[in-house]
Amino acid sequence: MNSEIIAVGTEILLGQIINSNSAYLSRKLAELGIDVYYHSTVGDNPNRLSQMLSMAISRSDIIFTTGGLGPTVDDITLKTVAQACSKRLLPNKNIIRDIQSYFKKKGLRRTPADAVRQASIPRDAAWFRNTVGTAPGLALKHRNSLIIMLPGPPRELNPMFENYVIPYLKRRKYAESRTLVTRTIRTTGLVESAVNKKMKKFLSISGLVTVGIYAHLGEVHLKISAKAKNPKAAERLIAPIERKIRKILGHYIYGTDKDELEDVIGRLLQKKRKTLSIAESCTGGMVSDKITDVSGSSAYFKMGVISYSNKAKEDLLSVSKETLKRYGAVSRPVALEMAKGVMRLSSSDVSVGITGIAGPTGGSRKKPVGLVYIAIARGKKAKVKECRFTGNRKDIKQQTQIAALDLIRRELYR
Amino acid sequence: MNSEIIAVGTEILLGQIINSNSAYLSRKLAELGIDVYYHSTVGDNPNRLSQMLSMAISRSDIIFTTGGLGPTVDDITLKTVAQACSKRLLPNKNIIRDIQSYFKKKGLRRTPADAVRQASIPRDAAWFRNTVGTAPGLALKHRNSLIIMLPGPPRELNPMFENYVIPYLKRRKYAESRTLVTRTIRTTGLVESAVNKKMKKFLSISGLVTVGIYAHLGEVHLKISAKAKNPKAAERLIAPIERKIRKILGHYIYGTDKDELEDVIGRLLQKKRKTLSIAESCTGGMVSDKITDVSGSSAYFKMGVISYSNKAKEDLLSVSKETLKRYGAVSRPVALEMAKGVMRLSSSDVSVGITGIAGPTGGSRKKPVGLVYIAIARGKKAKVKECRFTGNRKDIKQQTQIAALDLIRRELYR
Repeated sequence: MNSEIIAVGTEILLGQIINSNSAYLSRKLAELGIDVYYHSTVGDNPNRLSQMLSMAISRSDIIFTTGGLGPTVDDITLKTVAQACSKRLLPNKNIIRDIQSYFKKKGLRRTPADAVRQASIPRDAAWFRNTVGTAPGLALKHRNSLIIMLPGPPRELNPMFENYVIPYLKRRKYAESRTLVTRTIRTTGLVESAVNKKMKKFLSISGLVTVGIYAHLGEVHLKISAKAKNPKAAERLIAPIERKIRKILGHYIYGTDKDELEDVIGRLLQKKRKTLSIAESCTGGMVSDKITDVSGSSAYFKMGVISYSNKAKEDLLSVSKETLKRYGAVSRPVALEMAKGVMRLSSSDVSVGITGIAGPTGGSRKKPVGLVYIAIARGKKAKVKECRFTGNRKDIKQQTQIAALDLIRRELYR
Repeated sequence: MNSEIIAVGTEILLGQIINSNSAYLSRKLAELGIDVYYHSTVGDNPNRLSQMLSMAISRSDIIFTTGGLGPTVDDITLKTVAQACSKRLLPNKNIIRDIQSYFKKKGLRRTPADAVRQASIPRDAAWFRNTVGTAPGLALKHRNSLIIMLPGPPRELNPMFENYVIPYLKRRKYAESRTLVTRTIRTTGLVESAVNKKMKKFLSISGLVTVGIYAHLGEVHLKISAKAKNPKAAERLIAPIERKIRKILGHYIYGTDKDELEDVIGRLLQKKRKTLSIAESCTGGMVSDKITDVSGSSAYFKMGVISYSNKAKEDLLSVSKETLKRYGAVSRPVALEMAKGVMRLSSSDVSVGITGIAGPTGGSRKKPVGLVYIAIARGKKAKVKECRFTGNRKDIKQQTQIAALDLIRRELYR
């Protein structure tokens, strides 16, 4: 099977948004064994989209379109595809009900007329439910091609693709029987060149299994990919390599596949029946925000305090005036007292105190932008880590967040 | 002038990298008054690239290619373009010197043979210096089209485009003297279909000025774009339309161009010399995190409390046990008491209290997932807003965050 992806939207051609949908779909299609030969983007222009479609129909087994399914006049995809395939649009009762219930959930009694227009679809088309928006996805056979129309916003497209389109493609045998299985090994605490050096011999292997390295802010991921008849056979190819990699990287590895640091911490806290509290200064709530991204985190996350001012540090966390004066707000002793203060307030088992300079202003020669102290306390024991990060304000906040989460994780391993 | 951009690289079709070059070039070309009608991506496959090129030559004045100029066998762009234009490749002495000096700077005495291959270019081609890598950029006239080949890595492409390609296009009169100016009007509080309805007559105007509508989670943006001789003239076209739009949408508009809600709030707090504190439950620190993304926020943000547990609400914020028992943690009175509690603790002028059910668990028929109460207090006055959001846990957190920031903004307008 070969396929192509057509993104529809003038805002992409103006460079106002980046076409991340095509990258997302390509990754998913690779896993399904469907080759992607072309990506294209056209604006909200029916003529050019129409030409693009006829070419695509002449050369590809499956054509995915993204965008242009909304309720406005700019949204031309459905109309243009229907015309190209000489199909009339007919209202679909099930979709109307779906859209009405969407607006009801939003607290609106009447469904806007514009929105109902999205419920008219070509006869014979299959449709995919949109669980977060109103525009349904559509699948339409034309000549020897299958055209699959998907909404533009990634938060609508991604769950639709995973929950409905992938099963549809598998059921109809568009997806190959050979599958690509990828195992992601997630590490933090080592820079890319260090991981690269340790992994050199794995990164150069070729054949049915390959290993790739991908750097993110504060993290490095390794991807082991294997193609095989079925997932089990692919797993058998992956397992021995994964074992060897794990032996070398040890505790730098924090998780696998979709695990985020906050998921791993959540599982560890639940398993050990420990509770957590956090006092943040420079991260401004970002660490607590991550911790509470995990469903069920209320079971172990007791309290967060964002003590942005010295006064808040003193009043709420009982950081001593003396310590603040002598060492400054960004210092080891203050991080420690913050961690101890929030632990006392919340009676949690483990606590964290974070203070640093996120910049771009506020730095000095002795205490430059990017200097951060992270304290972790557990019962009566406590320790502080000094970090020096680079980048802009958000980069420094985010690197601090990752370092703090990693410190919690390593503490919980003990 | 109309143009198109062809990205060459199998790694894009596999979704391993996102095609950010096309977005970058599109933004730059819009500023130069060059229309972009298509983006395409092909893999490292000479046949498909060749077909793509002949179509592009038939329909576009300027064709930009990115990628495939490197020294490896996978790099097929230059060879394929030369073939399509029936041009031979001849070594260019100046480029050879350039490449040799690049390797000398890297501390290598001998220049790899592979690298020298990049110095062979079509007769009559213009070339652009690569100041950070070895592959030069190239410009070649063929029939009525100009083909401009650029390297793939953004850190090579961007400076080359800005320093050499833009002046080249201007010198040769490819870049129009007309420029495109875009004004973004950012709104929150109305869903897309509601904004669409109010803006219908603006969205259908055509000619030198156009208006587009773009939905984001919790926000809707309008973009007014104008083409004119110079930025000032474009501004004169935009101004009257912007005025009319502002009159209709009023306080639903929170900012312009790159303004984020947290920037607007920061400016308002500083101007009015007011301070802010926040008590969060379901958002888990996300609102404080946004507020502190703004450099200088320590001047007005006094304190954040994340009271995830009932105990934290009672102990830290003095929410009464009675209220919690009678109305439940997710209720108007609790949101109110949270806002008042954090105001008392921090002595801030304005405060916010947020409680809700982010899901996916924890909902009931009476209090479904997505139900959120946001209280805002200012001095002795306070009020609560009830919201009902849909989507997954992160979506609900994010929509709550936007609604909370918007409530602060509207309060500060008074």
